[in-house]
Amino acid sequence: MAERTRYLLPEEAIPTSWYNVAADLPNPPAPVLHPGTHAPIGPQDLAPLFPMAIIAQEVSTERFIPIPEEVLAIYRLWRPTPLHRARRLEAALGLPERVRIFYKYEGVSPAGSHKPNTAVPQAYYAKQEGVKRIATETGAGQWGSSLALAGSFFDLEIKVYMVRISFAQKPYRRALMETWGAQCVASPSNDTNAGRAILAQDPDSNGSLGIAISEAVEDAATREDTKYALGSVLNHVLLHQTVIGQEALQQLEMAEAYPDVVIGCVGGGSNFAGISFPFVREKLAGKPVRIVAVEPAACPTLTRGVYAYDFGDTAQLTPLVKMHTLGHTFVPAGIHAGGLRYHGAAPLVSQLLDEGLIEATAVTQRPAFEAAVQFARTEGILPAPEASHAIRVAIDEALAAREAGEERTILFNLSGHGFFDLSAYDHYLSGEMQDYEHPQSAIEAALAGLPSIAD
Amino acid sequence: MAERTRYLLPEEAIPTSWYNVAADLPNPPAPVLHPGTHAPIGPQDLAPLFPMAIIAQEVSTERFIPIPEEVLAIYRLWRPTPLHRARRLEAALGLPERVRIFYKYEGVSPAGSHKPNTAVPQAYYAKQEGVKRIATETGAGQWGSSLALAGSFFDLEIKVYMVRISFAQKPYRRALMETWGAQCVASPSNDTNAGRAILAQDPDSNGSLGIAISEAVEDAATREDTKYALGSVLNHVLLHQTVIGQEALQQLEMAEAYPDVVIGCVGGGSNFAGISFPFVREKLAGKPVRIVAVEPAACPTLTRGVYAYDFGDTAQLTPLVKMHTLGHTFVPAGIHAGGLRYHGAAPLVSQLLDEGLIEATAVTQRPAFEAAVQFARTEGILPAPEASHAIRVAIDEALAAREAGEERTILFNLSGHGFFDLSAYDHYLSGEMQDYEHPQSAIEAALAGLPSIAD
Repeated sequence: MAERTRYLLPEEAIPTSWYNVAADLPNPPAPVLHPGTHAPIGPQDLAPLFPMAIIAQEVSTERFIPIPEEVLAIYRLWRPTPLHRARRLEAALGLPERVRIFYKYEGVSPAGSHKPNTAVPQAYYAKQEGVKRIATETGAGQWGSSLALAGSFFDLEIKVYMVRISFAQKPYRRALMETWGAQCVASPSNDTNAGRAILAQDPDSNGSLGIAISEAVEDAATREDTKYALGSVLNHVLLHQTVIGQEALQQLEMAEAYPDVVIGCVGGGSNFAGISFPFVREKLAGKPVRIVAVEPAACPTLTRGVYAYDFGDTAQLTPLVKMHTLGHTFVPAGIHAGGLRYHGAAPLVSQLLDEGLIEATAVTQRPAFEAAVQFARTEGILPAPEASHAIRVAIDEALAAREAGEERTILFNLSGHGFFDLSAYDHYLSGEMQDYEHPQSAIEAALAGLPSIAD
Repeated sequence: MAERTRYLLPEEAIPTSWYNVAADLPNPPAPVLHPGTHAPIGPQDLAPLFPMAIIAQEVSTERFIPIPEEVLAIYRLWRPTPLHRARRLEAALGLPERVRIFYKYEGVSPAGSHKPNTAVPQAYYAKQEGVKRIATETGAGQWGSSLALAGSFFDLEIKVYMVRISFAQKPYRRALMETWGAQCVASPSNDTNAGRAILAQDPDSNGSLGIAISEAVEDAATREDTKYALGSVLNHVLLHQTVIGQEALQQLEMAEAYPDVVIGCVGGGSNFAGISFPFVREKLAGKPVRIVAVEPAACPTLTRGVYAYDFGDTAQLTPLVKMHTLGHTFVPAGIHAGGLRYHGAAPLVSQLLDEGLIEATAVTQRPAFEAAVQFARTEGILPAPEASHAIRVAIDEALAAREAGEERTILFNLSGHGFFDLSAYDHYLSGEMQDYEHPQSAIEAALAGLPSIAD
């Protein structure tokens, strides 16, 4: 019998509940504050934007929240996702048998990433509450595509405000959203007051995620039939992603393995939370597992930001949340190829870092792409540039264990494929890609703009 | 317990042999003829181009040919591929339970199609025989990508001659091949006599598959360390694809189903052969299964061509094979969006059609894309345009069974995903795509150029 490469679970093994790490946190989460009054907000403040079921999940402290059968029925189109033992990568790295690398592969979803894990329930709950239409923003398009897919499953109208520079550079992403029946417009657009105001000042504006958020929020807040949806950062989004780590636990048991270290890349924090929160629970129960969040050095929220109250968007429209942040005016350098460009990080991820339950590290983009190419040439799969940050650290952990003569079992989340990111690979392979770390002065300038909130 | 959506097999269920339909044909295959002398050729004539193990498979009449463990080890990266019951599509079509649609999904391979099923063994046998380098041609890039992937697994140098117009229009395909370590040049190139001769006449030549084949064959024939590889048409290529149908048989058994009709799209014939040849065997053993090959109306080899000896390439360099052909000078219209643009069809597929064991039909591209969009909006997966031809016929078969009040179980091969084909989807969704059927006069003109061979 040959050595096993993939660990596949039957449909029945798809988790039937999402795991809510908020139930197990040593300290309660910091309250979310109104952007104007700085007073704690309640569910009713969020009601214009989100379905009530989503708001309930956002503030829930229940440990397990059942997954509706209608959501499970769609998860079954691609879940359980495979867990791979990276045998060919291990061989290329010259690892002894005591050092093992496993990866959970979320690129098998129809949209090619983990994002549908939350897009589907968000669309489901909206449909349940009579919502006809969802507005959202997207940068490079992963999230917008996934919500378009989810909208097609529940016959919801989806309106995606896509950052104009990406809209122009990535026409295929727009075509993908349209194939799934969504409407996608370049942001700033003429469809909202926020968009028109920007265009009046600068008709050639390239747009930004901050502007696109403003447009989508305005759209949802001003239309009775429409809600808003977000693809990362918020508690309920992270909650939905925990199917990843719950499946991985079952699959590692099949492999008779337990990870010494669990690794995920962080932008807003959702794929990291998905793979790691079930292991945070294990750690709180006494298991000696290290959990490592990897971010790009070009947007070093967790490693060089501060843990403080900040706005979720540039325009200061969102509530204030306590999180690791570089300041809501921070803009990553244009030379950064991958995603993971958010100025903040999910409050739950930030709190876990603050409480010492997880670690964080940053890598520059050339070493990340070097790892991605080595991975593609051994394991076959072309990784999304975001996930390549996790691959880099997984490889470095393996090589360190080899050198130290230690046993080490490594698990990382391969959150998506890179078929839409080949221009970045081309840039790397041509030798033109530059490493970049944000200068301290620029970070300090952005941090100086943080709102002043008494703890 | 919910109704099952996907039928997943364990790694042990990957077939350990390829099925060779040549062992079961009622009549022996027509001999392959030398392009100059028209005399039957032998293995030695092919030795400059192909590894001996591949030549032996090309002419084998053994029913089962064992798959080497080294090939199985790589198949395990993505095989067994899933079989899906298309429950959401069935619901959208309003089908009663007695009409069922299943599809085998080959897009889960790292290259996104069925092509690695043969690229991997072709690279393996080349490596075994001391080959250092493989030359090949590619049109849109599916095959070139797959051979690049296979080359990375066996540390072989891969040189891909890519039709210049596609090279210019699809830079991401080139970047994908380069990420897997292959060299990809636009054809006609300055690297071969054939390429230089074309460029001398027309420095702005867009290239063609015929020219690219000439370059790759010349490259392989003139270098001691290099062999040639082809991604469809030949017997050994079809042989390697039979893992698809063998797995599907096991998965349908899990589903307690047996197909009344098996459907695949045909360009050269390899994905069609992969899903259908194991069912041809069943049919020869008495099972009443219909087997339908679907081709584009823009390149109607099986439905409007003749069954005759012809060259495999425009330049008349290849041996003569008896096949369904539109004539080696036939060129599909430029408005045809998908692949499946070959003037001939695999000799084995052609013979099965001639002997009445399979059927053939042609569809135009708008109905094919209409089916693909309906599929994407229900099943989630974005189909490759090639596979959309099979989806169209699967839907039509289902609707016909619904109308007729009959039971019908339908199986089709979803040979790949469409993430690299979104410009074609964009073209369709914009309403600009036109249907096209080749005029009879043009087909007759191409057929007039067939070589005259006594039967």
